[in-house]
Amino acid sequence: MFERAVAGERRALGRLLTLVERGGPAGDELAEIAHPRAGHCHVVGLTGAPGAGKSTITGRLAAAASAARADDTPGVGVVAIDPSSPITGGAILGDRIRMDEVIDREGTFVRSMATRGSSGGLALAVPGAIRVLDAVAYDPVIIETVGVGQVEVDIAGTADTTVVVVTPGWGDAVQANKAGLLEVADIFVVNKAERPGASDARRDLELMLDLGAHPVEGVPHWRAPILMTTATDGTGIDELWNEVGKHRTWLQETGELENRRQSRDRFEMLGRVDELLGAVGRARAESDHGVRLLGEVKERSMSPAAAASELLNDLLQ
Amino acid sequence: MFERAVAGERRALGRLLTLVERGGPAGDELAEIAHPRAGHCHVVGLTGAPGAGKSTITGRLAAAASAARADDTPGVGVVAIDPSSPITGGAILGDRIRMDEVIDREGTFVRSMATRGSSGGLALAVPGAIRVLDAVAYDPVIIETVGVGQVEVDIAGTADTTVVVVTPGWGDAVQANKAGLLEVADIFVVNKAERPGASDARRDLELMLDLGAHPVEGVPHWRAPILMTTATDGTGIDELWNEVGKHRTWLQETGELENRRQSRDRFEMLGRVDELLGAVGRARAESDHGVRLLGEVKERSMSPAAAASELLNDLLQ
Repeated sequence: MFERAVAGERRALGRLLTLVERGGPAGDELAEIAHPRAGHCHVVGLTGAPGAGKSTITGRLAAAASAARADDTPGVGVVAIDPSSPITGGAILGDRIRMDEVIDREGTFVRSMATRGSSGGLALAVPGAIRVLDAVAYDPVIIETVGVGQVEVDIAGTADTTVVVVTPGWGDAVQANKAGLLEVADIFVVNKAERPGASDARRDLELMLDLGAHPVEGVPHWRAPILMTTATDGTGIDELWNEVGKHRTWLQETGELENRRQSRDRFEMLGRVDELLGAVGRARAESDHGVRLLGEVKERSMSPAAAASELLNDLLQ
Repeated sequence: MFERAVAGERRALGRLLTLVERGGPAGDELAEIAHPRAGHCHVVGLTGAPGAGKSTITGRLAAAASAARADDTPGVGVVAIDPSSPITGGAILGDRIRMDEVIDREGTFVRSMATRGSSGGLALAVPGAIRVLDAVAYDPVIIETVGVGQVEVDIAGTADTTVVVVTPGWGDAVQANKAGLLEVADIFVVNKAERPGASDARRDLELMLDLGAHPVEGVPHWRAPILMTTATDGTGIDELWNEVGKHRTWLQETGELENRRQSRDRFEMLGRVDELLGAVGRARAESDHGVRLLGEVKERSMSPAAAASELLNDLLQ
């Protein structure tokens, strides 16, 4: 199936991504096949608050990237992460429709991933999806996540180029800062730039960049540019695509690209380590020893924390 | 400090809760002191979508509980969980102010907990806060969480009595179902019941309860009642408080209370196990062995998943 996906069969690729999302032995096997062939695509992370227009920007950016691609390449991969809670799912469905309106169906492969409440699953499924798209030569791969929740921010932050989208409006830049989005941003986009307050939002971001900037001698420094867009009519998208290219060149020339990729490998390895250790923990909790300790917690002769330490006693030397 | 909190000193109690939130050795020590004295209070979890009016309901429910308390008890504890992302923090600040308007300051202790993006921290801090409030005789303790994200739903779901708040409007009940809120609900509240669509929301919930109901012989079954409230003017709050009392009695009479508490102990123990194992995993990733494996991932001679398995080889027999 992998070879069929490499040959350009979109249905085969879709099935591979389903295997990645499901995890398990088939997903593992696929990772082993894809890993040696991956490592070429540029990964763009795009994140921001709900309603900032991320999906529309992603769709337009994908169209710009697709138009610029070489003839012998399949095009642009897009992985859109639905928020882990279906409570806000309605808005996302709307977004998906908006994205469909602007993408170039030929040169773009869009995959929407539900997280089913499992942020741990997300931390593994996204790198896995990037690997498969990468191995079958999609380039760039754009990852769109809502910038709410640590895992989502981390995922966007481990991209090669991270784009943070804000909108005009009181305190949006401040909120993005608190959410840790400022630290991960390589490029800022003030979307809905035709609205009142857009220049204020820009000024807020400039100020925060000034406050946060303390370049270290000998360490390459990139100051995140701030772009103004109106994604609904496409204004500013070409400039954004251009800046992504500049950042890509900067990463290559400074060697930062290697660092980013190592962070991403590390993030994935740790995600997997957490998954494996989680299974170890649950198995121990369900063992006779675990049940006995829970009994002591119930009798109030032992706290849950003490029971946990006791349960892992041999590992915590 | 614990003794001063027991004696009714609110500032001492506030400091204890700060220790719980910070974690670390002082928090652990506190848990050891508090655990043997806890286990008496009724824990009410209150959850629902953002903007459903949870804070106002919590405030009014706390006032009703406080009015009904015995003279020699300190009253009602409230732990309100701010969402893990500060992006939506603005709305919450507004909520907090609304809650302040309705609570009885004398008989209620309100604690707002920020989660700082760490859902793992939340899974430990909330049981810790319940334990402390419980040990100094607050009863009931109400936990308010936004029903977005697995950890938040889990926390509300491990309460003795879980109240799920929905509002009239297309699909809200359906969304609550998808988020796993239906499964954890002991009581439903349709808030903003004066709005159009309230009776539709009620009907949707009834239907979903009918579909989901398959009582097992010999296992006590509680069908979640559906209450209509207008929290802003207090309509329906006495009925809600009354239903919480009925559910409490049902839990005691059927023995379900013990089951709930064991689940809660287990949830906390597993949260702690995850924390401890997470540290083990990070230490291994940073070891020479971990760095060497990451090098192989970079050279593409090993996938991140294979590296993780190798790193934990001795634990995964």
